[in-house]
Amino acid sequence: MSAPAASAPVPSDAVRPLRVALLGCGVVGTEVARVLLDHPDDLAARTGAPLELVGVAVRDVTRPRAGVPAELLTDDAESLVDRADLVVELMGGIEPARSLILRAIANGAGVVTANKALLAEQGPLLFEAADAAGVDIAFEAAVAGAIPIVRPVRESLAGDHVTRVLGIVNGTTNYVLDEMATKGLDLDDVVRQAQELGYAEADPTADVDGFDAAAKAAILASLAFHTRVSLDQVAREGIRSVTADDVEWARRTGHVVKLLAIAERTAEGVSVRVHPALVPAEHPLAAVRGAFNAVFVEAAAAGPLMFYGQGAGGRPTASAVLGDLVSVARDRLTGGKGSYESAYASLPVLPADAAVTRYQVRLRVDDHTGVLAQVAGVLADHGVSIDTVRQTVAHPPAHVAEAVHGAGPETTAEPVADLVLTTHAAREASLAATVAALAGLEPVQRITSVLRVEGV
Amino acid sequence: MSAPAASAPVPSDAVRPLRVALLGCGVVGTEVARVLLDHPDDLAARTGAPLELVGVAVRDVTRPRAGVPAELLTDDAESLVDRADLVVELMGGIEPARSLILRAIANGAGVVTANKALLAEQGPLLFEAADAAGVDIAFEAAVAGAIPIVRPVRESLAGDHVTRVLGIVNGTTNYVLDEMATKGLDLDDVVRQAQELGYAEADPTADVDGFDAAAKAAILASLAFHTRVSLDQVAREGIRSVTADDVEWARRTGHVVKLLAIAERTAEGVSVRVHPALVPAEHPLAAVRGAFNAVFVEAAAAGPLMFYGQGAGGRPTASAVLGDLVSVARDRLTGGKGSYESAYASLPVLPADAAVTRYQVRLRVDDHTGVLAQVAGVLADHGVSIDTVRQTVAHPPAHVAEAVHGAGPETTAEPVADLVLTTHAAREASLAATVAALAGLEPVQRITSVLRVEGV
Repeated sequence: MSAPAASAPVPSDAVRPLRVALLGCGVVGTEVARVLLDHPDDLAARTGAPLELVGVAVRDVTRPRAGVPAELLTDDAESLVDRADLVVELMGGIEPARSLILRAIANGAGVVTANKALLAEQGPLLFEAADAAGVDIAFEAAVAGAIPIVRPVRESLAGDHVTRVLGIVNGTTNYVLDEMATKGLDLDDVVRQAQELGYAEADPTADVDGFDAAAKAAILASLAFHTRVSLDQVAREGIRSVTADDVEWARRTGHVVKLLAIAERTAEGVSVRVHPALVPAEHPLAAVRGAFNAVFVEAAAAGPLMFYGQGAGGRPTASAVLGDLVSVARDRLTGGKGSYESAYASLPVLPADAAVTRYQVRLRVDDHTGVLAQVAGVLADHGVSIDTVRQTVAHPPAHVAEAVHGAGPETTAEPVADLVLTTHAAREASLAATVAALAGLEPVQRITSVLRVEGV
Repeated sequence: MSAPAASAPVPSDAVRPLRVALLGCGVVGTEVARVLLDHPDDLAARTGAPLELVGVAVRDVTRPRAGVPAELLTDDAESLVDRADLVVELMGGIEPARSLILRAIANGAGVVTANKALLAEQGPLLFEAADAAGVDIAFEAAVAGAIPIVRPVRESLAGDHVTRVLGIVNGTTNYVLDEMATKGLDLDDVVRQAQELGYAEADPTADVDGFDAAAKAAILASLAFHTRVSLDQVAREGIRSVTADDVEWARRTGHVVKLLAIAERTAEGVSVRVHPALVPAEHPLAAVRGAFNAVFVEAAAAGPLMFYGQGAGGRPTASAVLGDLVSVARDRLTGGKGSYESAYASLPVLPADAAVTRYQVRLRVDDHTGVLAQVAGVLADHGVSIDTVRQTVAHPPAHVAEAVHGAGPETTAEPVADLVLTTHAAREASLAATVAALAGLEPVQRITSVLRVEGV
């Protein structure tokens, strides 16, 4: 690789290297260190100054890290931060990451972080500190790994009005749902397989119960709507209750099941939520397979946009971290720019039951005349309007079939039917009341499933 | 909308407005003017200072423009430029756009342009001027309309190595090919329809012959490979020769035909080209329908990424222009940043015949023993390796069928077969020689089509 050319944004005479501190050395950190050590000329040419890795803070300095010289390892993260112009935080968790980032900012160092939990919980604290100190804080890697989404929403759409963000931002759950759809397996079986293959954590709670996606939803909503949204304002429901039957019914009705992070502008404010949803098969998000991520953005002028790529993994995430590092380093050479946070709109963040969406409700009912009219009446009473109804005479359930073929008085068992109702847009609160009322109807044997329909 | 909040990157006390000059007032310009006039508070909050539209340069000031007060119109573009802090060039073409942009830069004004032809022809001249003056020049709207692609490639991937870019960057041709595929129509019929619907220009040359896509390919290649690529270095072939039969055969072999802008890093340099190509049906680009655009980027660390959205139209393009305007305005407040051009790598740009790709060749041959061996021999002689062969006995062509049913000596007509060969990666030059040799084989009646296969 050649030396920096005259087209770099700083004079081509010798420039003092920018000292980089790396906090954390897991799969992403190791990859970031490797690029800093192995490709210094490329990064220098793109930045306008050499980037010198001055140390890597780890908990256990005795454990060797592939490709990272032992003399760079330190367990004194504070001293390392104090020696740096640029601090890359890849430790995760709230503390000590939070204190170290604030320390870096106070020192006037630019910050790059991939810490979605910290940003979703305490972003405003960090942004205010960065603005006060006039230093950059960048976090492209915190949402959807390698996919450029933070910068496009924050900068490319700065002259537009985002109306909705629908994101597949957790690769593990997308993989699980995709395997359920293509192989007809149950959730538990796929999760177990994914754990064996290393795609899912031993404790899959953060993924399966939607915590990871919720942190990303909070960050995306904050950026998209110029409004501070914190993790505790995100309504969250994971995929644990999604059955193989749900996935199969989705297919039959022209949908796929996806765990979506949703941030939506309504007349009343901003709705931010994570839940499994039926996505129409022809929607671009429906084609996002396996562990890939994608974020679908609707803006008033730009219309629909989609950003697609790998949402996790050491190398993809390192790509996003290094892109941020070059940007922050460039800004550092021309004077820092602050957090770039824009929270001027300060829209109200709506409670979970104010969300407005469409629903697909599946019910098992006694198959006799007038049942559909009763069901439709309940929806009408609650102001929920029906879009489509599909009725299927169910195969007699196993115990009924036995009773029919056995001896005895049970041979009078009535036939049953499955109803699949799709509603027009309705409030979450109205739907909850509707479902409770349906469950109480005499001919309703059970509410088989309630799933939201998004992307319509 | 509320006033700028404390989180904006400049002090919240009164800030002098930034004066914006708009050059050109077509569909995009009108929309940009409308947003500047109708939503000043939003833009001010996001920028950190008010943006004041001080004039709109047009050729004919007597023609009214919807939503733009007559007193803003001027035909003295030079004086307007001299009064501006920020200049938005939406005139298109080389002159006077080039001179006006250079004048703005010399004055120290930040520049936003959507002028792909000018950038592809004379980008380096503009970038050098901007670097020398320390002012920004931004051009997100020049490639793929509303889709953020310039910024992600230039900034988000600054710490990665792009290996390939495959773009559907011309909506008109994508619409035409999509209609051919879904309705079985011929190209000319679809182009005529598209013209009637206003989707295609009266003179469709720029789209159909790939000139528009070639300019975008040059810009994307320059960004992706940190190498200056000009329009005359882009190998270009439009869609005029694509037949309904090609599109149908693509479907039968599991592909779709797309006009692709391709920029590829090889061991020898950079290959930049525009041509119709077979894309595997399961590739994310295959699902890009109608007039939508998408750019698929492969990077060493990030892996595959795709950016999808509307590539043209007044409002989508205005979204990109306004996003750039907010960025350039922010930079203007904190000191300009220069062109951000990075051409340090200066890789060799390869000639057209050095491109390496796969091909699908369809031939009509006499259907007798030994023909396939002869054909395979020609490929082997030219070092082109065969991946798959598919042979179909053709229905006798019409004139043969007539001859068979008519009287006379022609009833001896031999049966014919269609051969579909797919090659492994081969050089363009080797393939051209191979096709010429095949055409000279005695049993080869014709070379029906030669199409490249991309995205494998």
